[in-house]
Amino acid sequence: MPYTVTVRDHMMIAHSFTGEVFGPAQRLHGATFVVDATFGADELDADGVVVDIGRASAALAEITGSLTYRNLDEEPEFAGRNTTTEVLCRVVADRLADRVAAGELGGGSPSSLTVTLHESHIAWANYSRSL
Amino acid sequence: MPYTVTVRDHMMIAHSFTGEVFGPAQRLHGATFVVDATFGADELDADGVVVDIGRASAALAEITGSLTYRNLDEEPEFAGRNTTTEVLCRVVADRLADRVAAGELGGGSPSSLTVTLHESHIAWANYSRSL
Amino acid sequence: MPYTVTVRDHMMIAHSFTGEVFGPAQRLHGATFVVDATFGADELDADGVVVDIGRASAALAEITGSLTYRNLDEEPEFAGRNTTTEVLCRVVADRLADRVAAGELGGGSPSSLTVTLHESHIAWANYSRSL
Amino acid sequence: MPYTVTVRDHMMIAHSFTGEVFGPAQRLHGATFVVDATFGADELDADGVVVDIGRASAALAEITGSLTYRNLDEEPEFAGRNTTTEVLCRVVADRLADRVAAGELGGGSPSSLTVTLHESHIAWANYSRSL
Amino acid sequence: MPYTVTVRDHMMIAHSFTGEVFGPAQRLHGATFVVDATFGADELDADGVVVDIGRASAALAEITGSLTYRNLDEEPEFAGRNTTTEVLCRVVADRLADRVAAGELGGGSPSSLTVTLHESHIAWANYSRSL
Amino acid sequence: MPYTVTVRDHMMIAHSFTGEVFGPAQRLHGATFVVDATFGADELDADGVVVDIGRASAALAEITGSLTYRNLDEEPEFAGRNTTTEVLCRVVADRLADRVAAGELGGGSPSSLTVTLHESHIAWANYSRSL
Repeated sequence: MPYTVTVRDHMMIAHSFTGEVFGPAQRLHGATFVVDATFGADELDADGVVVDIGRASAALAEITGSLTYRNLDEEPEFAGRNTTTEVLCRVVADRLADRVAAGELGGGSPSSLTVTLHESHIAWANYSRSL
Repeated sequence: MPYTVTVRDHMMIAHSFTGEVFGPAQRLHGATFVVDATFGADELDADGVVVDIGRASAALAEITGSLTYRNLDEEPEFAGRNTTTEVLCRVVADRLADRVAAGELGGGSPSSLTVTLHESHIAWANYSRSL
Repeated sequence: MPYTVTVRDHMMIAHSFTGEVFGPAQRLHGATFVVDATFGADELDADGVVVDIGRASAALAEITGSLTYRNLDEEPEFAGRNTTTEVLCRVVADRLADRVAAGELGGGSPSSLTVTLHESHIAWANYSRSL
Repeated sequence: MPYTVTVRDHMMIAHSFTGEVFGPAQRLHGATFVVDATFGADELDADGVVVDIGRASAALAEITGSLTYRNLDEEPEFAGRNTTTEVLCRVVADRLADRVAAGELGGGSPSSLTVTLHESHIAWANYSRSL
Repeated sequence: MPYTVTVRDHMMIAHSFTGEVFGPAQRLHGATFVVDATFGADELDADGVVVDIGRASAALAEITGSLTYRNLDEEPEFAGRNTTTEVLCRVVADRLADRVAAGELGGGSPSSLTVTLHESHIAWANYSRSL
Repeated sequence: MPYTVTVRDHMMIAHSFTGEVFGPAQRLHGATFVVDATFGADELDADGVVVDIGRASAALAEITGSLTYRNLDEEPEFAGRNTTTEVLCRVVADRLADRVAAGELGGGSPSSLTVTLHESHIAWANYSRSL
């Protein structure tokens, strides 16, 4: 996409992983995820934006607000799944995509979305999809 | 592009926006834009670079220098346009592309350019184009 | 102070400076200030905190909210003063100190405050005071 | 202290807080703490250092390793205490101080220590003590 | 690639460049390269990851460990080549690709790799390839 | 000091260390040092600044310019000394102090100076002195 706009928020969750590959991360632990949502578009709208940054930030904050300060192991929607950084990137992206489809971000018609979750200063993940 | 090189600079401008979507940003305000210019190429030149970092930095500094410490609302070239972060990404990218076309960056033949403007620690935008 | 807690916010303002030393910054321009407020205390309160991060963030957001998206040259309180980064550090710190004195931050009794304003990736300023 | 040296590591923990002031953070959640340990000294040793960065990093890694990938609510040493960012700064600092006292950092005689824990891109805390 | 995971490490090397375009960088000097390795995949594996972050970090650390604390001008493999930031991106990427091909990263089948080397706070480079 | 102002620059040098404690860093290697110079003052001058940021940046750039793109092992002034991060902090600070004493920073009378050198994303050092 020629144009993109990114907004940042964060969430603080507990979880554990199933699978020997995860080593000590099989224990209940936690993470701060700094969350970046990047909206892409071929053209700017009449106001000169991809999406309104205020609305995009508000939409992202509602999603991080629905996940933060929780133990994801106890959330029914994640039952039987590892809530890895990659998986949570997709969860946030799909929820944001639903909000875009519902018209919550107003004018503009972004056609792609990338969500990045930073789990520390030395590791992060992305998930990209079309809108 | 397999190879890219990025250089960073910044500019400090005043402006206002037209359009109710902008809310309080319709008032005259300002921004520091941290500006990243990313040049892409399929192959490195004989020296082993995409572009010379020194020349690329100098070219970018001339462009940020032509915009910084100004009220963009009073610059004739922006009359009637919102100088959003996205729009300014394109302005910087197009000016840099002109300099590449004029041979100012020397050897090497980058074929793509992405300009990122960071408007705060929680929001930034990109514009990408071919060269 | 043995203990400190810091919260971060930002504001985007226009202004100009008076004085030849400022060179091109005498023109109307602008800045994004990333604002850090650091509260210091000798001891933690019964909850184990210097100040409640939620309340501290809310207090800081009200102050940045009263300054952002404005042309400081037109704000009566700054008439005849240069709103340099250093000066604005003190403005934010003194307003936060008033809120602490008014009990807005709840329990805990921080005794010092430092406010840092980052004007770009290569320049920032501090102002420190007691509470 | 005229001279300081800082090394960085991180840890990923789950915990919950007791006290109404914590709002939703009373629920079990988690955090990535990026941990900075700053050693201060009046003079450099004969090698020209405050502490050996390799040894300091190793000592810090052992401490973060003893805390990471755990639910702090179930660690006996934290029973009945809120493991706030401030409290954990002190825990890490006191453990590092014990290692310095035990001679684990080799030559040099740092006389002060500050530990900073970053809980997100917008909040962090410090604890400082003498050695 | 819809999914990516990135891990970060660093290395500290000496080198010099041949070619007038490099100006003072023709002299023997040095750099800290902060190295990011980004693995991309179309799908997550059964554990919900692109690659295991622990194994990916270990593989990257072995590669940076084979380059760090060296004068690259004296390493036979770089004889007659400029070890520019771009060139070193490819060196790290190709070595990582060999380790992926050798099965060192375990399950998962990443299909692309991008390596970023940051040479300072204002300049960095990328090299991308398929796996 | 109640007020401080900081400016940032960088330098890229080669060097080696003498002393077993340095392990592989006894070999010729290199570093990018991101250099922060922090000037402190009790009061602002008549313009509302601690020091002019433009002049402070220029003074710092001349000092980093005198060190960058060099092998410090071959600089006579460092003969017989380890140019550790801590030692180089002092070198930069003392040179900046000389420039302040010579009046190069113009009006204002900063009374303290701290120089920070970041050698990587996980290690940095400070040296502080009075002016």
